[in-house]
Amino acid sequence: MANAKLSPLETLAASVKNSAKTLNIAPSAKRNEAISRIAKNLLARQAEILAANAKDIAAAKENGIAAAMIDRLSLTEDRIKAISAACKQVISLPDPLGKADFGTTLPNGLEMVRVKVPLGVIGIIYEARPNVTVDAAVLCLKSGNACLLKGGKEALHSNMILRDIMQQSLEEAGLPTHCIALVEDTARETTTQMMRLNGYLDVLIPRGGAGLIRAVVANATVPVIETGVGNCHIYVDETADLAMAVNIIDNAKTSRPSVCNAVETILIHEAIAPQLLPLLKEQLDKHQVTWRGCPKTEEILGMAIQPATEEDYTTEYNDYIICCKIVQDMTEALAHIDRYSTRHSEAIITNDYERSQEFTRKVDAAAVYVNASTRFTDGGEFGFGAEIGISTQKLHARGPMGLDQLTSWKYILRGNGQIRK
Amino acid sequence: MANAKLSPLETLAASVKNSAKTLNIAPSAKRNEAISRIAKNLLARQAEILAANAKDIAAAKENGIAAAMIDRLSLTEDRIKAISAACKQVISLPDPLGKADFGTTLPNGLEMVRVKVPLGVIGIIYEARPNVTVDAAVLCLKSGNACLLKGGKEALHSNMILRDIMQQSLEEAGLPTHCIALVEDTARETTTQMMRLNGYLDVLIPRGGAGLIRAVVANATVPVIETGVGNCHIYVDETADLAMAVNIIDNAKTSRPSVCNAVETILIHEAIAPQLLPLLKEQLDKHQVTWRGCPKTEEILGMAIQPATEEDYTTEYNDYIICCKIVQDMTEALAHIDRYSTRHSEAIITNDYERSQEFTRKVDAAAVYVNASTRFTDGGEFGFGAEIGISTQKLHARGPMGLDQLTSWKYILRGNGQIRK
Repeated sequence: MANAKLSPLETLAASVKNSAKTLNIAPSAKRNEAISRIAKNLLARQAEILAANAKDIAAAKENGIAAAMIDRLSLTEDRIKAISAACKQVISLPDPLGKADFGTTLPNGLEMVRVKVPLGVIGIIYEARPNVTVDAAVLCLKSGNACLLKGGKEALHSNMILRDIMQQSLEEAGLPTHCIALVEDTARETTTQMMRLNGYLDVLIPRGGAGLIRAVVANATVPVIETGVGNCHIYVDETADLAMAVNIIDNAKTSRPSVCNAVETILIHEAIAPQLLPLLKEQLDKHQVTWRGCPKTEEILGMAIQPATEEDYTTEYNDYIICCKIVQDMTEALAHIDRYSTRHSEAIITNDYERSQEFTRKVDAAAVYVNASTRFTDGGEFGFGAEIGISTQKLHARGPMGLDQLTSWKYILRGNGQIRK
Repeated sequence: MANAKLSPLETLAASVKNSAKTLNIAPSAKRNEAISRIAKNLLARQAEILAANAKDIAAAKENGIAAAMIDRLSLTEDRIKAISAACKQVISLPDPLGKADFGTTLPNGLEMVRVKVPLGVIGIIYEARPNVTVDAAVLCLKSGNACLLKGGKEALHSNMILRDIMQQSLEEAGLPTHCIALVEDTARETTTQMMRLNGYLDVLIPRGGAGLIRAVVANATVPVIETGVGNCHIYVDETADLAMAVNIIDNAKTSRPSVCNAVETILIHEAIAPQLLPLLKEQLDKHQVTWRGCPKTEEILGMAIQPATEEDYTTEYNDYIICCKIVQDMTEALAHIDRYSTRHSEAIITNDYERSQEFTRKVDAAAVYVNASTRFTDGGEFGFGAEIGISTQKLHARGPMGLDQLTSWKYILRGNGQIRK
């Protein structure tokens, strides 16, 4: 690894790895100082950021990129202020490093302590959202991790100036500039190479849509944390409070349909469907939500709807579309969830105690809700202060990944000559 | 995934996944009952085990397999008794499931609790060591995980009878038999297929030599936990106690050279090398340890030794061979460790307080020792009761993986109608 012809990507990764050695053991004050400088420099160099971003937006418009994507790509004075404010909030979070979460003296007198340490170097592959560039880098910095960032090509100019500002800030704080680095080469092969940077990256976190996640899982040889694909369900039991059900489903569907914790398919107990569906339709109509569903749903709604297909049951719409299935009982609902859930967030609305317990025990997902909206699955809402993504795998971290989930541990054992018999 | 033509491996994996649904939420008593039956049935059906194992050994001998491997492959009455006793010991360990390790009431009144749950289905690929078949399956069972086992082809007959006995035991305990399954097809393509059973396996743990681990890392699309490659170092500082250094190095090298926590390269401060090396040679000569080393080592030992090459520095000998490098100072030792360590176990022998602190802070490894043998990195020695392997990666688990490291968590949130603003 250390010798011979490194590719440009490997050269960059080696530089990040080398910088990590300093950052991984840098004291909390130094890491916070760097973040503080970032917050300040983002505002000071706002004009440069806006100019670079304007180039990206112009190119995106020229290329006929969709309006929603251009919105995510756009930076404004207010957005830069918000990014800067978010940095300051991260400074105020407790340091996730150095804590001893386990320790004992072994029978032979060896003193063992398990201490939280950074993961090392984190690779992050994401889409054309320049705010992620700063959010992700700052969370890595706070948790003592160097990072290698690879953002969507549409945001390259924005990402480069943000990278420059962050590297300037690192230097001002006395940390190696390559604690934060950006892969500028946006070719697909380079992205694939990045997924195979074993020996340089300790973990790779893809943040984006299902396609990106799939590509990373299929190609990566570096350990990956899958994030963010949310095909979420709400099961409305026959004992549910009707107004609560309408309110929760409306919130879970329409408060922000584009996010992973929004609901996609609702499963309604057949005994309550005739009362619930008309009320729900009335509420969702206010947001022009389109229905898809089973024949019974159509019958109760009394209007023609697109029949729900296998594809509907597996799709994260990210849109004002809801899929509805009338079920005979909770067993049928549980079977549907087990089959189609991406194990992100699942909810039951019920007043039956036993069923609420059975649902939370049997549903295999990062977050299981009783009588609440699935929209709460979020690092901020959970009180973690910030998140780098929502893990849908069971290894290492499940659910919102806050600073604690960006750490590993090491065992330190102090003795006075102990040998193993 | 649920439809169409499944391969035989997928069919087996689907059956394991289905069985996992029951096992994942089975109470502790039921899981322990199954393990208890396994312990009993192993003894009751000992004759069948020995007969199957004899077939494997006969075939191995016919194929000219090395004696050390035949030893690992061999089961005897005593070894079966030991495996059975190890099962009983696992029963006595605390249940890793159901514990709430984090919980709070959110400002909106949502009650959140994070509960330990099984990973789900664990795939384990290992070499021709039939004891691992039972050890690994029982740890999975105890932690509520179903498992799909794939052992070395040389142990197939032994593994099949052990699988039968464990499945009988599951049935007696009222659990689905396919909570434990064995991949009988030992073709390399099947092993590769197993590494890509996304949707069936939640994690894949390879247990074996460096070649196996590399193949799994390169080919797996399922999340992997790398285990067991240990290129471990001991640095002897100039202030070290000579007798302690000899004693620790002798223990770390010769008490069991074939294991991953044995030492491979020793780094000796040049100020202490002239005193230490003769004493160390005298001790290691008792075990016919072969030396390799730098020119200074040769000079001090006053005998011709094979010069240490780059390959020596990267090799886990697993043998009575030691590599020695004389260093100018701890900085040189730290640089060597940083370059060649597999981040398993590293030790310093010193009486200098500041250096001991610097070493534990700067060395990036699962276990870092001061004045003790590296041989302690082991689930049993660490007090975990048992281990399924020693992770050398930083994600999810680092160091010995006991029952706690075979769990994930889920967040359960109970509300009364909360929606997100």
